[in-house]
Order: sequence, then structure tokens, then C-alpha cells
Amino acid sequence: MRTRVESDSIGSLEVPFDAYYGVQSLRAKQNFPITGRTINDTFIVSLAQIKKAAAITNRDAGLMDKPVARAIIDACDEIIAGRWHDQFIVDPIQGGAGTSTNMNANEVIANRAIEILGGEKGDYSLVHPNDHVNMSQSTNDVFPTAGKLTVLSMLPETIAQLERLCEALKSKAVEFRHIVKIGRTQLQDAVPMRLGQSFHAYASMVAREINRLKKASKEMQTINMGGTAIGTSINAHPDYVANIVDNLSKVTGFDLKSAEDLIDATQNLDCFVAVSGALKSCAVSLSKIANDLRLLSSGPKAGIGEINLPAKQNGSSIMPGKVNPVIPEVVSQVAFNIIGNDMAITMAAEAGQMELNAFEPVLFYNLFESITTLGNAARTFVDNCVLGITANEERCRELLEKSVGIATALCPYIGYKKAAEIAKLALKTGEHVEDIVVETGLMKREELQNILDPVAMT
Amino acid sequence: MRTRVESDSIGSLEVPFDAYYGVQSLRAKQNFPITGRTINDTFIVSLAQIKKAAAITNRDAGLMDKPVARAIIDACDEIIAGRWHDQFIVDPIQGGAGTSTNMNANEVIANRAIEILGGEKGDYSLVHPNDHVNMSQSTNDVFPTAGKLTVLSMLPETIAQLERLCEALKSKAVEFRHIVKIGRTQLQDAVPMRLGQSFHAYASMVAREINRLKKASKEMQTINMGGTAIGTSINAHPDYVANIVDNLSKVTGFDLKSAEDLIDATQNLDCFVAVSGALKSCAVSLSKIANDLRLLSSGPKAGIGEINLPAKQNGSSIMPGKVNPVIPEVVSQVAFNIIGNDMAITMAAEAGQMELNAFEPVLFYNLFESITTLGNAARTFVDNCVLGITANEERCRELLEKSVGIATALCPYIGYKKAAEIAKLALKTGEHVEDIVVETGLMKREELQNILDPVAMT
Amino acid sequence: MRTRVESDSIGSLEVPFDAYYGVQSLRAKQNFPITGRTINDTFIVSLAQIKKAAAITNRDAGLMDKPVARAIIDACDEIIAGRWHDQFIVDPIQGGAGTSTNMNANEVIANRAIEILGGEKGDYSLVHPNDHVNMSQSTNDVFPTAGKLTVLSMLPETIAQLERLCEALKSKAVEFRHIVKIGRTQLQDAVPMRLGQSFHAYASMVAREINRLKKASKEMQTINMGGTAIGTSINAHPDYVANIVDNLSKVTGFDLKSAEDLIDATQNLDCFVAVSGALKSCAVSLSKIANDLRLLSSGPKAGIGEINLPAKQNGSSIMPGKVNPVIPEVVSQVAFNIIGNDMAITMAAEAGQMELNAFEPVLFYNLFESITTLGNAARTFVDNCVLGITANEERCRELLEKSVGIATALCPYIGYKKAAEIAKLALKTGEHVEDIVVETGLMKREELQNILDPVAMT
Amino acid sequence: MRTRVESDSIGSLEVPFDAYYGVQSLRAKQNFPITGRTINDTFIVSLAQIKKAAAITNRDAGLMDKPVARAIIDACDEIIAGRWHDQFIVDPIQGGAGTSTNMNANEVIANRAIEILGGEKGDYSLVHPNDHVNMSQSTNDVFPTAGKLTVLSMLPETIAQLERLCEALKSKAVEFRHIVKIGRTQLQDAVPMRLGQSFHAYASMVAREINRLKKASKEMQTINMGGTAIGTSINAHPDYVANIVDNLSKVTGFDLKSAEDLIDATQNLDCFVAVSGALKSCAVSLSKIANDLRLLSSGPKAGIGEINLPAKQNGSSIMPGKVNPVIPEVVSQVAFNIIGNDMAITMAAEAGQMELNAFEPVLFYNLFESITTLGNAARTFVDNCVLGITANEERCRELLEKSVGIATALCPYIGYKKAAEIAKLALKTGEHVEDIVVETGLMKREELQNILDPVAMT
Repeated sequence: MRTRVESDSIGSLEVPFDAYYGVQSLRAKQNFPITGRTINDTFIVSLAQIKKAAAITNRDAGLMDKPVARAIIDACDEIIAGRWHDQFIVDPIQGGAGTSTNMNANEVIANRAIEILGGEKGDYSLVHPNDHVNMSQSTNDVFPTAGKLTVLSMLPETIAQLERLCEALKSKAVEFRHIVKIGRTQLQDAVPMRLGQSFHAYASMVAREINRLKKASKEMQTINMGGTAIGTSINAHPDYVANIVDNLSKVTGFDLKSAEDLIDATQNLDCFVAVSGALKSCAVSLSKIANDLRLLSSGPKAGIGEINLPAKQNGSSIMPGKVNPVIPEVVSQVAFNIIGNDMAITMAAEAGQMELNAFEPVLFYNLFESITTLGNAARTFVDNCVLGITANEERCRELLEKSVGIATALCPYIGYKKAAEIAKLALKTGEHVEDIVVETGLMKREELQNILDPVAMT
Repeated sequence: MRTRVESDSIGSLEVPFDAYYGVQSLRAKQNFPITGRTINDTFIVSLAQIKKAAAITNRDAGLMDKPVARAIIDACDEIIAGRWHDQFIVDPIQGGAGTSTNMNANEVIANRAIEILGGEKGDYSLVHPNDHVNMSQSTNDVFPTAGKLTVLSMLPETIAQLERLCEALKSKAVEFRHIVKIGRTQLQDAVPMRLGQSFHAYASMVAREINRLKKASKEMQTINMGGTAIGTSINAHPDYVANIVDNLSKVTGFDLKSAEDLIDATQNLDCFVAVSGALKSCAVSLSKIANDLRLLSSGPKAGIGEINLPAKQNGSSIMPGKVNPVIPEVVSQVAFNIIGNDMAITMAAEAGQMELNAFEPVLFYNLFESITTLGNAARTFVDNCVLGITANEERCRELLEKSVGIATALCPYIGYKKAAEIAKLALKTGEHVEDIVVETGLMKREELQNILDPVAMT
Repeated sequence: MRTRVESDSIGSLEVPFDAYYGVQSLRAKQNFPITGRTINDTFIVSLAQIKKAAAITNRDAGLMDKPVARAIIDACDEIIAGRWHDQFIVDPIQGGAGTSTNMNANEVIANRAIEILGGEKGDYSLVHPNDHVNMSQSTNDVFPTAGKLTVLSMLPETIAQLERLCEALKSKAVEFRHIVKIGRTQLQDAVPMRLGQSFHAYASMVAREINRLKKASKEMQTINMGGTAIGTSINAHPDYVANIVDNLSKVTGFDLKSAEDLIDATQNLDCFVAVSGALKSCAVSLSKIANDLRLLSSGPKAGIGEINLPAKQNGSSIMPGKVNPVIPEVVSQVAFNIIGNDMAITMAAEAGQMELNAFEPVLFYNLFESITTLGNAARTFVDNCVLGITANEERCRELLEKSVGIATALCPYIGYKKAAEIAKLALKTGEHVEDIVVETGLMKREELQNILDPVAMT
Repeated sequence: MRTRVESDSIGSLEVPFDAYYGVQSLRAKQNFPITGRTINDTFIVSLAQIKKAAAITNRDAGLMDKPVARAIIDACDEIIAGRWHDQFIVDPIQGGAGTSTNMNANEVIANRAIEILGGEKGDYSLVHPNDHVNMSQSTNDVFPTAGKLTVLSMLPETIAQLERLCEALKSKAVEFRHIVKIGRTQLQDAVPMRLGQSFHAYASMVAREINRLKKASKEMQTINMGGTAIGTSINAHPDYVANIVDNLSKVTGFDLKSAEDLIDATQNLDCFVAVSGALKSCAVSLSKIANDLRLLSSGPKAGIGEINLPAKQNGSSIMPGKVNPVIPEVVSQVAFNIIGNDMAITMAAEAGQMELNAFEPVLFYNLFESITTLGNAARTFVDNCVLGITANEERCRELLEKSVGIATALCPYIGYKKAAEIAKLALKTGEHVEDIVVETGLMKREELQNILDPVAMT
């Protein structure tokens, strides 16, 4: 393989001749062969957006020559458009608080800009990764800011899927509004309700989770660009500091604002803990819904069987005709994974020390997966499950009639104790609650028919 | 021991003659000998507030005789004032979604009301635990509502301590504003900053956590009283449903509102997950601050030693004169415990099934401990640590002067690569950065003195 | 209140005149008002056992006067017998790696020994908390060792309850051996099995968990007594170091051994993580069993209803006659709590720094609760649930006959695809699988009767 | 794109003409677009090993024609050798307890076997995915068994890296044996020790973790092959059941044995929880070591600076000359991730229901990542950090001499209280402990020189 030699403070290294990345990326790749995965694409775009905004700001502040700025901006635009992502070679779990990822971006952009200017890759006298691409910046403001931009870019799609889920559940609430069934508490027969109410309750919960996600994501708009190394803005010209956030808002289309306390914003990751917390809460809620759907569709013959989930694939490699609730199952699995991710994020945030949290990479690794998989789970939940759910109206009625939960409605008339005796008798003998009450002479049948109407109880 | 005999659907049981609790409480105590602990006092008060509001509402709706209502209200007021708490004998971790705790309250209030009315304890013909004290209610609206009231009652004290902490940190930020020191990233010497900035950053983070807690606690104001068993309001008179929330607002002083979807509000615990998430985030942030204080005060001779924590107790049973950072240590421990509690809460919420979550008791057990211990940790953090912190100004200066972080400021003038060479040389030889630059002829001393002034860098 | 004045390095403090604890305990109580709870009783006994063994060893090495040793030993014996536990006033969550708890023990024992020797409490010239009671020791070997002894003392009861559970499940496996029912995978009807097999599987799992707990608990027998402050045995006489572990074995009855690497054994808590991990695994398994029992007993009319759990208490404050699976519910709640505790323990262990882990107190707080509550949960699980489970044989048969899982047995004869068609047809029409196969002419009825016999399939 | 049409119970679908996978794989891919990742390569190999062993066993039992068996075996051997992995298209997080992955294997192997036999892909009359490749099997014995084989295949490399780490730490223990330094507890100066002892303690801990991993991995050798759908061995010929485990042992080289209780072994995942628990414990221990190395190497000028980590890359994009502890940082991040994975695994195991745990896919997704990343972290820890660590002997001595921890050694001679006074005085005045003691006349200098020799204290 043809190579070029690059050097840094540690020494020199052969870099593939055609590579846009340089010595620091390569060194990082060798230091951190951890997951075998690559940097999130949206994160790469976010980095390019920052580098572009920085070049604009540096140029306008008179700190960077226009042709250099132009070349950097063009290189960034290419990355934003999806090019050169394969040149980001570092592992997402890496030591060094993101320096490797930031330098990977700096090197790729520098070499592409050099090319644009007609130079040879590696000739950093034209465009230097640190002095030009990283000008007025530090990993310590670039990296967390890129993380926030990435969340802001990714969350809307996840929220959109959740909103579709909410709508799908609401449509089922309407569709099943008229179906009366037995409600269950602690898996035991309780009192009548409508199937539509179950789905409305799910929709209500999802709506609440969407709100929490939206609130948490607002925290992502406050960034620490301009704070450089530790938030004191060392090496950043006042004109740059004054304009970088606005320029980044323009580049990204997000309404960003500068943190009031840049020291704080540089070292603390609690805003990501908040976002992850909202994702976790949402995952928990989705898993609860998924569990309910599995219970309600259990059977087809030896379970509850009040609803049918759409058959999406053969259920078994050995049991013919078996259809399983595979979509709710995958939703719960995604939830478990997100809950685990939240734990990793929590530990990473807790481990920050003094002016920096060095554990951002693993935090982002987990956070981005949580956002993506939550959205993906919601999408397949809607398309491959919720929208196709049908009700077994007859089964709902059958189970309702067998159960004695309607005895609850007797309490205001004959007291808890007598109602309990009647319920137990009905369970034991199989006789209908109404008949037993009439036999005991406690109440008259006409009166009872109103009281014991399950529809009225819902 | 003198006893009276009480019975329920399961059979009869001897209850201590003087006990205000009854057969169901006793049975629960025998079924759940889990933690050996008792129900949270504030939770007991919350239950009594609900029972009082229910009695008022039932009475006003013409569902309950006035003398019975009066006796119940009086009994509740006694409990609210702190009496009879020893009659709550059930374990906080219990099966049954809180029915045991609710029935414990119903029995204690019924028996005390019977006494007030001149009857004998156990004569439930006068006041019945289910038919009167629990009238128009179910455990399934009472228990989660009591949990929310308890959070609303307990959080303000915790928030007040956090606000004191925020203020204490801010006062230190002012006190230490003039002290210049070396900042550290990844535990390695970075660039200059002021000690006051460190404390200001802590204050900023705590302020943010307080906001999150306040936002999350707002969710606690939406309750499901009137929904009874599963949210369909079975057995609750429309007049009761219409007024119970307002009456409970009056009794508690909180601005409560009824959930729009009572089915949802009865079965889902995501609002508690949100509160716990905010507590966890806050705990993480406090632990980060605590860790920093331990690092900055490490020594006294063989560590960083930039600050002194107040000596609060002998540090060692064997090492004389040793003083340890015991308060930050306890703060981190509380944080670990709260993070663990959050996990238990998450699992409990996820495990809900259909019309009810049966795992509320363990959720509350963990949640209340998190709230209390977070407040307690913050209090001792302020009083026994933060307020007494002093700075070692000389040590700050000494370490700053030794370090070569100021070389960073050279980058805009001589580029990253040359600056790196100079920094490495300074580290190796111990020579001052300024002198090396002058010797190399790269810049003049006058110019350098401005650039390398650490105060200017902060 | 009458007081005496005691002083330490921090200053002087008024101690209640009658208190056996002293200035350091009181200071700690004031510094750590965290949980409001007290030190675990078994842990107090473990501390006293250590102090007794140390006194014996110091005396035999000629380091401590015999009368002083005698008095200390007698005081320890009293504590071991259950006296003076109310004099342990420090909070279990405390800063300082356990120094406060150790000093609380040292002070109580010293003052009681002083009394035994005829002196006045507080006259430490007779028996000194540090110089005598703590002689040759450090909190850093005493505290983790006490933790290990406590686990060794507590675990056997927990394991005994798990063994009872295993036996109870096995007895049910025998009792239900003949009952054929439909097995379920993913909550969907699968193939036939025997109810006894379900319970045998539970017993097998519990047996495995017991083994894991026993293995993990063996790690508790390796202790670091004699290592003193950091494992270098500073201030411990060689004769003491040579004999303390043997003497402690004699005092406790446990087969203890000295860690080969005392530095390691002093600073690392991984052995507790291992024990907690085994507790967590066991909790997970118990929760799985509990969930299954709730599913199998769901109903009584609108669920699976294959088994009946014993009715242990009224299930509802509003729904008469309702009986809920309260014992399985409490088992799962205990599991959630233990899983949360494991997380706190994990974080505490991870946070250790250099020669000591300062976070042992919160680790023990969680670990002891996990051990106790796991045992308590197992006990009530056996006594109030498993032993009383009965089977609904008819219901098992009814559901088995309705389901079409037996079609699986056709695959080896007619292939997966044809079998699937038949199963679907049977589900749709309600016709019996056997009849459909005969009608299609694929196989003869005589042949089929053997193949489709559900009993043979189990 | 040229396609072929395949059908299953759900309907028909166009499959790419050249694809070895079939309709069921494709359907699964569409149902579960969750992580965008692919099935672990070792897991694919494990599946092929099982399919090969099953074909051998079925053939030898006379259940499968020899040419078909031969073709299946050859196809499996190709997969074992690394071919056709790109034909495994399903997402690792999937609903259905692994049926999709198993069917993906069945389809790829069937189509490749068809090809080998001279047929056209999709002509399942020659070799059928269910009837031949999956003969005598169910996903429910294949999938968990494949998981166990995968752990058995992957763990040795991870353990080998941990053993290298243990050796590297031991070699440093020898190298630094002579260097005396101050030990630190709670980040405060304690008593003298040797730097080599620190590294020996790390090695001791790692050795313990290796043992735990080895013990836990033994559980992986017990498998449920032959149990088929739920452990009752439905559709598996007795000859097959008798021989499949031995044949799989031969194919894999592992010493496998059949579970005594196949029902249990089919439904319960506690053995994976145990393995994950051991991985988590190890991760915690590695993170503790990593943290210590970061602390000990902090500086270079304004920290502890007792050791130097090898410089592996530029530390900062803005701060020239900065070298950061990037390898220990990545080790801790991997630990956080593994702790999070353990939580997901715990939840997945807890969620199992009746005869199957449907959440195995997410469990494996997390477990395999934990094993791989732990090994990778250990490898880079050894190669890029531990082996290159050097000691700053002079700095160790300087800090030791400044500290007053040696005063501890005075306690046996002058008592804790006087020793404390002297330590405080030494700290305040900067005077040497020895001089102060001599001045006070408490002891003579000759006597003191032995007592206060730090080397003797270690």
C-alpha cells in the first residue's frame, strides 16, 4: 500500500496515501480497537457543521484567510452532504474525551480542503488540522456541542414515530370504544371497562412521554462553543466568541444559545442525563404497552385472547401455525437495552472530574443508540402491530359474563361484606350474581338490572 | 394479651384489644415480613388527608351521615397531627398494590372514629373501614394519589436544601473569585482559571437540577381520585367525582387537578419515573461536585491541596492527625443509593400490567428514601462542608507556575506544533515557557508578557 | 440532661453522661443525619467479635495487660449477646469508610470495659478506644472484615429459606406430575407438558441459585485482619498478625483465612460485588417464578386459571371477593429492590481509590438489606404461597383440548408446511386436529391416536 | 433486481434471486429494523455447528437421508469456515426468541445444501429449512445453545487478555518493588508503602476476576439440545436425543453435557446472568485500576505524578504538549458500558414467561458486546498502557517526605492522642516528625530512627 508519512508529538506514522484522515486518527484507531464500530453519521455531520460555522466566524473576524476558509467550508459541505464518512475511522468508544473524533474531523477536513486548494494531502502548511480547522476551538467545546446537535437532529424522527404511535393508539381507542370487557388488576378479574379505554390510556401515556422528550431536548440548545479548553475562552478571539453560536444556528437551523456559565457547560453532562432519562421513561412506558398487548392477545385458545395482533411471520421453527407477538417483544427488548444504556450514561456523567468529563464518548455511544432504536421500535410497533390489531368482541363478552367483577357495583347498596359473600358464591357455583342477589331477597331484579349493567359501569 | 376477634373473607383473627388497626392490617403484617420497617410518616399523613377529603365530599354529596363523617374527619385530623402512626403496622414492601396500607389506614381511622362516636373498637357497624372510610374510593386511586401528595410534601424541603447548597457554592464563587489556579482536564494540567469559577460552575449545575426537580414535581399535581378501581369511577357518585379533587386541594393546600384520562392515571407510574429520574440526575451532579472537592482537597501534602475542607471528625482510628473528606464521601454514597433506587423504580414501573401497577409499594419505598436522603445529603454538604471550605491561595499559585498550560496561549501566534515543542521542552527542563520562547527568537518578551499572563487567560 | 465532656482532635463535645458511646460517635451522628436508620445488629455483633479476637490476640502477644483484655472481652461478649446495641448511634450511610462505626464500637466497648474495671465512663486512661480496643487494628481491616462476617452470619438463614422453597417446589412437582396441560411460549399456546414439570423447572433453577450463593459466600472467608491501615500491617506486632485470623475463626466459628495480598484485600470490594451479583441473579429467578405463578393463577374466570394460589387476604378495598396474588407480587418487588441495591453496590465498588474504598458503608447498607429481604421473601413465598398452591386439573385439560399445539407432533410425518395448514384450519374452524388429518386422508386414525396423544408428548 | 418468490404461512414475498436466505429471513428483516447491525459472526458459526451436529445425529439415527445430511454438513462447514455470513440479514435485536435468526440459518443452509445437491435455490423439496435443517430441533433449544457456544468460543480470548494484564501488572510489581511512597486512603496521605505493592494488588484482583469468569463460563457447558420446543423433546427421536450433545461436543471441541432438567434449561437464562455478573465484576475492577492509574499519573506538574503512563497520542486539539491518560479512560468507559449491558441482561432474564424467555436476542446482543469489549479493553490496557508505565522515584520520595503519615508508627509508643498532636504540629510547621518528637523529649532519636523508617513500615 502506498503511504505518506505524518508526524505528531508522539512520533511519525505511515498513513495510506489516499487517506483524508491523518496521523492522529490512525493513532487513535490503534489505541482504541474496542467496539469495531464507527462514528455515528449524524454526529459526523454535526462536527462538519461546527467546523463550517467556526471557519465562517474566524474568517469574518479576520482570523482566517478567505481562501482557506472557503476550502474548509466546502469540505464541510461535502461531509454534511454525506461524503467522506468512511474517512472517520476512530472507534466510538475512545479515551480522551473525544479528541480523537475531533482530530479525525480536523484531519479529514484539512486534507480535503488542501485538495480543494490544489495541494497534496498531508501538506498541512496549506490547511492545518489544529491551526485552521480547529481554530478558536477545543475538543472540549466542539465535542459536547456536536453531541447536542446530533440529539437535536435525531430526536425529531423518534418523536415523529412516537406521535404516529400515539395517533395509532387513539384510532384504536375509537375503533374499540363500544367493546365492553372485564378490566383486570393484578391479573385478576376486576370490573368492566371498554377495550377502547385501554388504548386511550396507552395513547395518553405516550403523549406524556413525547412531552417529556420535547422538554428535555430543549436543554440541547444551550451550547458551550467559544468556551474552548475549559470554558474560559482561551485562544478564542472576542469577535469569534460573540458570533460563533449565531453562525452555528444559521448553519444548522437550530435555535442555539450560548451557556451563561461556560465553565459549567464544558464540564457537566447532566443535560444528557436528562435526555436519557426521558428516553428511558418512554421506553418503560412502551414496554408496559407491549406487555399488555402480549397479555391481551395471549392464546389463541388457552390465553386471554381478547385481541389479535397481526401475524407478521411464522412464530416457530418447530410448531406449525404458531404466531407470536414478535413486535411487542422487540419493543420490550429495545426498552431493556435503553434502560441499560441509561445506566452507562449515568455512570459516565457521574465520573466527570474537574474541568472536563472524559467519558463523553461512551455516553454518546449509548445515547445515540437509545434515540435511534426507540424511534425504530416505535415505527415497527405502529406499522407492524398497532394498526393491524383487531378485537375479539365475542371473547370479550364471554369473559366479562363469566367473571363476577360486577359484584363491586353492589357495595353502595348492600355493603362490602355482603357483596363479597355473593361474589364468592357466584364464583363457586357459577350462578349469576344477579340471580343470587334476587334469591337472597336483598334487592329486586328491576333495581339490579340497572346497577349490574356492565356498560353503565364503564 | 387481651384480644378481640375480627374476621374478613379469609377467616377470623385475634387482634390486640387496644389496637386501632384490624384484621386486614394484621394479616398483611403476617404476609409481608420483608424489611422490618414501617410506612413513611408523611405517607400516613397523606392517606389521612385523602380520607378526610373523601369524607367531606361524601358527606356533602349526601352519601354519608354527618356524624360519621365528622368522626372520620376528626380521626384523620389526629393522624395528620402525628397521632396513631404506630398503628400503621404493615411493611412498606408489600404485595397487593397498596391495599394493605390503604386498609391499615381505613381500619385505624374507622376504629378511632368509632371511639369518637362512643363505640367499641371493632364494632364496624358504626363506622366501617370499607363502606365508610373507603367510601367512593379504591386503593387504586387512593394509593398513587397518596404517593403524589407525599412527594409534594417532601420535595420542598429537599429543594430548599439544594437551594441553600446553590447559594453556598455561589458565595464561595465570590470569595474565591480572585484566586488564579491551573485548570485540569482528564486530571492533567490544562490552562489557567479562577477557583471561583469552579464553584460557580457547581452552583450553575445545582440550579439546573433544582429546575428539573421542580418541573418533574409538577406532574405530581395531577391525580386520579374519583377513578376508583380502574379509572371508570365505578361506585363513585358523580357529585363525589366532581368535588373530591377540589376538596383534597383544600385539605392539603396543593393545587391538584384531575387527570384527563383516569384509566391511564390509575395504571401508569411514569410520572414517578420522571421524578426519580430528576432525583437521580441531581444525585449524579452532587456526586460530581463531591468528587471534585475530594480531589482539590487531596493531600494535605501529597495531593493537590488547593482547598481545605473543614475538619469534621477524626479521620482514622489508627492514623493520628488524619482528616478525611467525610462529607463529600457521604454525598457520593447517597448518590449511589439513589441511582440504585432509580433502577428499582424503573423496574417497578415497567412491570405494570393492564389496569393496575401492582408494584407501587416498592416504588414508593425507594422514591421516598431518595427524596429524604438527597435533602439530608445536601444539608450536611452545606453545613458541614461547603460553607467551611477555605482556599490555599499560595498552593494554587505554586502549581499554576509549575505547570506549562500557559503554552496554549502561544498557539494563535506560533502555531500548535511549535507551541507543543516549547511545552515539552519546558516540562523536560523545568525552564519557564516565556524564557524558552524568547530564546528561540520566535517572539519578544514584551509581547509575551501580555500573552502569557495567566490572569488574562481566565 | 446530665453530660460529660469529651474531646478529640476537632475539639470537645458534651456527651450524655450515661452514654457508652463517646465524642467521635456523637460527632459522626451529627455529620451524617442521612437515613435515620441504625447499624445492622448482626454487623454490631461482628464488630464485637473482631474486637474480642483482637483483645485475645494482643493479650497473648503480650501487648495488652490481662485485666484490660479481660474487660474488653467481657464487654464484647455482652454486645455479642445483644446488649448495648442502642449505643450504636451512627447512621449506616456515613462518610469515612466506616471509621465512625468502628469508633462507635471502640467507644462503647471502651466505656463498658472501663465500667467493668470499676472506672467512670469517659476515663479513657483505663481503657482507650484507640489505643486499647482498636489496638493493632485499623478501620480499614476491621470494617470490611466485619462486613464479611456479617454476610457469613446472615446468608445461611437466607439459603435455608431458599432450600425450603426448592423443596416446596419439588413437592408440588410430584403432586402435579400427572396433570397434563398446554405449555406456552411467548404467551402463545405451544405443546403439551405436565404441570409438575413447570414446578420442577422452578426447583431446578432455585437449586442452581443456591449453589451460586454458596460459592460466592466462600469468598467472604478471606479477610484482611492484620493488614491495618492499608495492608502493610503498620502498627501490628508480628505475633498479632500471625494469630488474629485464627483467633477470629475461634470466636466466630467460621473457617477464616488471611488474604495472601493484604494490600489488595484492604482496598478492593469485588468479593462483595460477587455476593451481590449472586443475590441479584437469585432475585431475578424468584421474580420469574413469581410472574409465572401470577400468570397461571390469573382469572379466576377471565384468565388462565390453571392453578390457585392460597387466598391470604382481601384483595381489594373496593372489589368484594377479589383475591390477588399478593405473595408473588411481594417477591417480585423484593427482586426489583435487590436489583437496585446491586447497582448501588456496583457503583460503590467502582469508586474505590488507591489504598481504600471509602464507600463501604453504602455498599453494606444495600448488601445486608438484599440478604435479609431475599430470605424474608423466600420464607413468605414458601409458607404463604407455594405450599398452598392447588391445581385446576379440569381447566388444564379444557385449555389443552382447545389448543392446537398437538399439531406439532405431525411434522415428522407430514412436514412442517402441511402441519401448519392443518393447525390453521383447526384454529379457524374449531374442528379437532385429528379429524382434519383423517379427512385429508394424509394419515389414518389409528396411527394418529398414538402420535397425537398429549400425554406421550410430555 | 431478479427475484424468486417464496411463501410461508403469512403469504408470499419476492426474495433476491441469488440470496441464500429466504422468505422468513426477509420478513424478519422487515419486521425488526432496529439497530442496523448484523448477527455476531461467532454466533453464526455456533449455529452452523449445531446444524451440523444435528444433521450428523439425525442421519445416524436413520432420520435423514445421507445425501441430504452430507449437503447440510458441507454447507455448515462452509459457514464455520467464514463463508455466507453476509446472508445473515436479520437484526440482532428481534422479537420471537430467536426464531428469525434460527430460520435465517436454516434457510441459508438449506439453499446452500440445495445448491450442493445441484438444485436451484428456493426448491425446498430437496432440502427444507424446517423439515431437514431444523429436524429434531426448535429455536428454543438451538438459540440458547448457540448463545452458550458463542460465549465458550469468545471468552477464552477475553480471559487470555486478562491474564496478560495480570502478568503485566505483576511484572510492574517486581519492577517497582523498591520504590517507597506514601499510601493514600480517601485521597488523603496515609502511611508508607511500596509502589510495587500497588501493582501487585491490582494483579491480585485481576486474578480473582479471571477465576470468577472461568467458573461462570463452566455453566455454559450445560445445554438443552434435544429438548426442542419446551424441553419435553417433542418431535425428537430418542436416538437423536441420546446423541446430539455428544455429537455437538465433537463438532465444537467443547465438553458439553445435557441439562438434567430440560424444561428448566429451555426457559431460564440465569446462567447468562451469572456470566454477565462476572463480566460486570471484572469491569468494575478494571475501572478501579484505571482510575488509580489516572490519579497516580495526574499532573505532570500540578498533580500526584508518581508514575508516567506512556504517551500514546496528542492529548488535546488546543493544548499543545498535553498528554492524557487515554487508555485508562477507555477502560473505564468500557466498564460503564458493560455495567449498562448487565442491566439490560438482568431485565431480559427477569422478563421470561412460562416455557420460554422471549428476550434472549437482546440478552445476547449485550452479552457478546460485553465479552468482546472487555477483552479489547484489556488488550489495549496491557499493550498501550501498563507495559509502558514508568515510575517517578524521586517524586515518590519527595511526597513521602513531605507527608506526616509516618506519625502513625508512633502510636504504639506514645499513644494515638499524642501522636495526633505531633502530626498536626508537623503539618502546621513543616517541621519533621522525628525532630518534633525528640524536642518534646518523648523518645530518643536513635529509637525513633528505627520506628520512623518508612521502608520498615511497608
